[in-house]
Amino acid sequence: MKAFELRGFGLESLVLTERPEPVPGPFETVVRMRAASLNYRDLVLIQGTYDPKLRLPLVPLSDGAGEVVAVGPGVTRVKPGDRVVLSYVQDWVTGEPEPSLVTRRLGGPLDGVLAEYVKVPEHGLVRAPAHLSDVEAATLPIAAVTAWHALFEVGRVRPGDTVLVEGTGGVSLFALQLARLAGARVLVTSGSDEKLARAKALGASAGINYRKTPEWDEAVLSLTGGRGVDHVVEVAGGPNLSRALRAVRMGGEVTVVGFLEEMRAELELLQAIRRHVTVRAVSVGSRASFEHLVRALEVHEVHPVVDRVFPFADARAALGYLASGQHFGKVALAFPR
Amino acid sequence: MKAFELRGFGLESLVLTERPEPVPGPFETVVRMRAASLNYRDLVLIQGTYDPKLRLPLVPLSDGAGEVVAVGPGVTRVKPGDRVVLSYVQDWVTGEPEPSLVTRRLGGPLDGVLAEYVKVPEHGLVRAPAHLSDVEAATLPIAAVTAWHALFEVGRVRPGDTVLVEGTGGVSLFALQLARLAGARVLVTSGSDEKLARAKALGASAGINYRKTPEWDEAVLSLTGGRGVDHVVEVAGGPNLSRALRAVRMGGEVTVVGFLEEMRAELELLQAIRRHVTVRAVSVGSRASFEHLVRALEVHEVHPVVDRVFPFADARAALGYLASGQHFGKVALAFPR
Amino acid sequence: MKAFELRGFGLESLVLTERPEPVPGPFETVVRMRAASLNYRDLVLIQGTYDPKLRLPLVPLSDGAGEVVAVGPGVTRVKPGDRVVLSYVQDWVTGEPEPSLVTRRLGGPLDGVLAEYVKVPEHGLVRAPAHLSDVEAATLPIAAVTAWHALFEVGRVRPGDTVLVEGTGGVSLFALQLARLAGARVLVTSGSDEKLARAKALGASAGINYRKTPEWDEAVLSLTGGRGVDHVVEVAGGPNLSRALRAVRMGGEVTVVGFLEEMRAELELLQAIRRHVTVRAVSVGSRASFEHLVRALEVHEVHPVVDRVFPFADARAALGYLASGQHFGKVALAFPR
Amino acid sequence: MKAFELRGFGLESLVLTERPEPVPGPFETVVRMRAASLNYRDLVLIQGTYDPKLRLPLVPLSDGAGEVVAVGPGVTRVKPGDRVVLSYVQDWVTGEPEPSLVTRRLGGPLDGVLAEYVKVPEHGLVRAPAHLSDVEAATLPIAAVTAWHALFEVGRVRPGDTVLVEGTGGVSLFALQLARLAGARVLVTSGSDEKLARAKALGASAGINYRKTPEWDEAVLSLTGGRGVDHVVEVAGGPNLSRALRAVRMGGEVTVVGFLEEMRAELELLQAIRRHVTVRAVSVGSRASFEHLVRALEVHEVHPVVDRVFPFADARAALGYLASGQHFGKVALAFPR
Repeated sequence: MKAFELRGFGLESLVLTERPEPVPGPFETVVRMRAASLNYRDLVLIQGTYDPKLRLPLVPLSDGAGEVVAVGPGVTRVKPGDRVVLSYVQDWVTGEPEPSLVTRRLGGPLDGVLAEYVKVPEHGLVRAPAHLSDVEAATLPIAAVTAWHALFEVGRVRPGDTVLVEGTGGVSLFALQLARLAGARVLVTSGSDEKLARAKALGASAGINYRKTPEWDEAVLSLTGGRGVDHVVEVAGGPNLSRALRAVRMGGEVTVVGFLEEMRAELELLQAIRRHVTVRAVSVGSRASFEHLVRALEVHEVHPVVDRVFPFADARAALGYLASGQHFGKVALAFPR
Repeated sequence: MKAFELRGFGLESLVLTERPEPVPGPFETVVRMRAASLNYRDLVLIQGTYDPKLRLPLVPLSDGAGEVVAVGPGVTRVKPGDRVVLSYVQDWVTGEPEPSLVTRRLGGPLDGVLAEYVKVPEHGLVRAPAHLSDVEAATLPIAAVTAWHALFEVGRVRPGDTVLVEGTGGVSLFALQLARLAGARVLVTSGSDEKLARAKALGASAGINYRKTPEWDEAVLSLTGGRGVDHVVEVAGGPNLSRALRAVRMGGEVTVVGFLEEMRAELELLQAIRRHVTVRAVSVGSRASFEHLVRALEVHEVHPVVDRVFPFADARAALGYLASGQHFGKVALAFPR
Repeated sequence: MKAFELRGFGLESLVLTERPEPVPGPFETVVRMRAASLNYRDLVLIQGTYDPKLRLPLVPLSDGAGEVVAVGPGVTRVKPGDRVVLSYVQDWVTGEPEPSLVTRRLGGPLDGVLAEYVKVPEHGLVRAPAHLSDVEAATLPIAAVTAWHALFEVGRVRPGDTVLVEGTGGVSLFALQLARLAGARVLVTSGSDEKLARAKALGASAGINYRKTPEWDEAVLSLTGGRGVDHVVEVAGGPNLSRALRAVRMGGEVTVVGFLEEMRAELELLQAIRRHVTVRAVSVGSRASFEHLVRALEVHEVHPVVDRVFPFADARAALGYLASGQHFGKVALAFPR
Repeated sequence: MKAFELRGFGLESLVLTERPEPVPGPFETVVRMRAASLNYRDLVLIQGTYDPKLRLPLVPLSDGAGEVVAVGPGVTRVKPGDRVVLSYVQDWVTGEPEPSLVTRRLGGPLDGVLAEYVKVPEHGLVRAPAHLSDVEAATLPIAAVTAWHALFEVGRVRPGDTVLVEGTGGVSLFALQLARLAGARVLVTSGSDEKLARAKALGASAGINYRKTPEWDEAVLSLTGGRGVDHVVEVAGGPNLSRALRAVRMGGEVTVVGFLEEMRAELELLQAIRRHVTVRAVSVGSRASFEHLVRALEVHEVHPVVDRVFPFADARAALGYLASGQHFGKVALAFPR
């Protein structure tokens, strides 16, 4: 079968190659991949900054959807022909994260989905939402599950709450769509008026251009009558976290799901203590969260925002496009049929 | 001022009379009532079955909205001219219920809102939602706050959940509307196909006529693919609770908010234990819940379902109409201007 | 190997027999049993009242401890020589219970531990607490995990709380010991003054003999200054639940873990609603709860209360002794070495 | 009556003066102070760094205990002769903090307890624990309530958990004592071996001298078998927070209750995200938490650690002693009788 292998760090070391087709062992399945989507993690992993000790060669990419084509002995959860999405953190089935449950991740350290066939244990699969295309389904595993986990597992967004979403990347747009489903009012920040306009079209109540309004926390306070928002989905890091702390209400929560700008952040303690703020750092979620998300998307027939779809063979171009930061929503790959 | 007094048990003992206008003391306010709404509690209280030792005479009715017309020394939360709703459990401002916080209730043991002017401490008031009429605002204090408390304080309804709402009384219809705001799918039971049709028009996904389908729990299971619902809002009591337990998913919750049919209920323990079911009995909620509810209604411009509005002078007729069980939504009173 | 088989319902149908020694497949282990303990569930299951459709023959008993003697391919969690306890609900590793996770239970429908060797997947094992004997470790899987789950997973017992424990059976004594570890004050009910004295020796603050004080709920209220207890561990069923509801404080919780007297219970709704009471039915807990329990027992070097130990060959006598209700704490079996 | 007034910033501006004795208005009480205790907040407030805009003159100190000597109209919670402790955040009775509930704080902006008589509303009082002296009771309002809130309101410490307590100041020692009550294992850091020995005498399992072991997070990991602690009570700020994040287990919590060293702290985001860490900043707690704490202390007859008691007249010397950092536990003042 065809597969892309990362043989060294850097996009130029990602090469198309031939690998043997996988055969399922007990409790295992083989999925014929139909689509994949890209995450910021894929970029930094390929660049070597995510984990310099990563064992290579590796088939990259974490997010994928396809069709079960073979099952090993003992498999009962799925059968050949089922449309499925792969769960990024393969063994985190339910409950709280534990080191032993979060080790086996697709796209590093495990081989990922940038291959025609992928072998995973049956417990690592989720039924694809019936109303979504393969490409749409492939956008869910990291970005949508992270947004769900932030808002509804560690967070508790309720109708009438105000949620602040930073930026318009994959997690952020899912957070916007899901917070709206839950009855919240959503504010969005971005450095582009055009992206803010698109976020409003998706249901955001207001947008703040942080280039034009660097003190965006004050804009948030004035949009909330001085009260602050109930929940912030934080993606940037650096001094941005301090602004997020000032934008949240007393007793509110900031969930950190990424670090697009800096890998460190600064906390003003007196500010945080006086206002009883909680900062939660989270990474994706369990298969149970993924399944809950699927039910929510199906009930409301919500479609993910797909920015652009590249063919499988153009994986490198797709990754370069993601790195350019021009996208609004998810960048995806469609596999040959 | 004019007021209705309950001078003995029974609707015939509810008489229109004159009382002195109240004067606010320190931290107190006087509200000119504009509208009231009726609850099942008002009926059983007037009949004497709610509390046979209730001290009479009493001005009945718990739910009312109006305008602040006078404030005593020290009042800072409101000012004359403010449109307000009265909080039924006057001292339960926030947090968990405690005996000392839930004693002072409007419409028994405290005098209620069936009077032209009502005196309450400033902490017992909530700002009326801007988009609601006085009559609409007056429907909120018991029914909507109970539904909010059940679904979002003790419960944790999330997008994609399925909520079963029993009947189409006041609490039930608010539960339907609020569960929809939160992204849930809602199933409704009723003994009337016409009421089920109206519930569907409000957003219910399916209705079950328990007269035609006495084993309504089986219908619920088949509507949820055998999984059961995540949450039941229980209003009936008696053998109905056992059905509710069978209709809920493993680990699900049944919140008991009333007892329209029987004051006792039966629990099948093996069934409950095997399926890890929680039964919560709740009564209304705090002022903080009420304020959260107001934010939710405002963000989505949701209007309560008002079945019929009677003039103040026809309070007895309105109570008789409520007793007949013909209503769909709230029965209200409009006060003379 | 030697094993007891249940070939029909009734204690007389439990016969000692020979079975082939199990061989571990992939991810499986074989445990040489050293000890077992008995639960009320074993009794009603053998009598046929727990599940009349149970498939026979069956090796009964759910609770056992022993030593890993063989592991199949892929096993990493344990190795031969490890002292282990078997987890009763084999697949419930962590998080909330789900139907697919709670089906495979030892001692019915799966073969149980009343055999010299037992084969289980590696994920169904828990490390035995270092300070406990095999017999002591074998008392934990159902009774102690249930008590833990009731008090610390669904419940939230905190220092200074008052916990009411009904009776002095296995779950109840673990609940007493664990609630004490958590800094709670514990009240105990029993029909025997002698058992109450022993419960006090274990740390209970007060005991109530329900034969001498049938209105034991009033005794509880007077022992708590009229406030009621924070948490009740309910084991009886029937009208007892209504008493438990009256003994709990406003906003308190009753956790139902058994039904020693009746399989139905009655709920007084007005009482429950006015006092915001939660009734939770639970069954055992996850492996993560079991592991948390082990840490707690080890930190405090707590030993379970073992009433009497019978030899393996006298399993029927041991079950008969449990049925007599004379025991205080767990009844256990020691296996031949 | 005698009172100390802060007339400008700096300890030298704290002067003993005469003020009129307060008279209780409606719902108010007057307390004859018997003892007070000092907090780090008092120091930075007097120095002017806590709030440079603080309105002066001010009677400082937040923590005090005494006897009710007069009550105004409407008071029902207390009566003259009652031994009471004053609640620092006067209006935060229960539930979550809200800006309107946390404004009125004793010892700034409200006049504090460094006076012979203090007037407070009845809702701002808590019954003093029966087994504590006045001086002991006076140590509770800030330090013990903060520790309670961190461990048991926002935190959920359970038996068998490991709690890391930084330092041996007031909050830290209460956290140590309370975590022990709850069945946790406690690790303590300090820069003094003598203080570590005293912490062990109070129940700590192990102590780490951060002067000798600057990488104290690695010592914590080795003391927990590599797992990390469940909960950290953080008091220092600065780079210390990053160490705390590395010392906590996956999914664990760091509660920030102070900033003894720096008012900013640094968060390593990748570290935090991969390990799902929560950082909560909290400030004291509600009266309901205070009352829960009192029940816990009474059940176990726990006594606070009082380092040294100065006479009322030597308040300045006492504050100087606190500033020296020599203390272990609380520094208190005894008032003239």
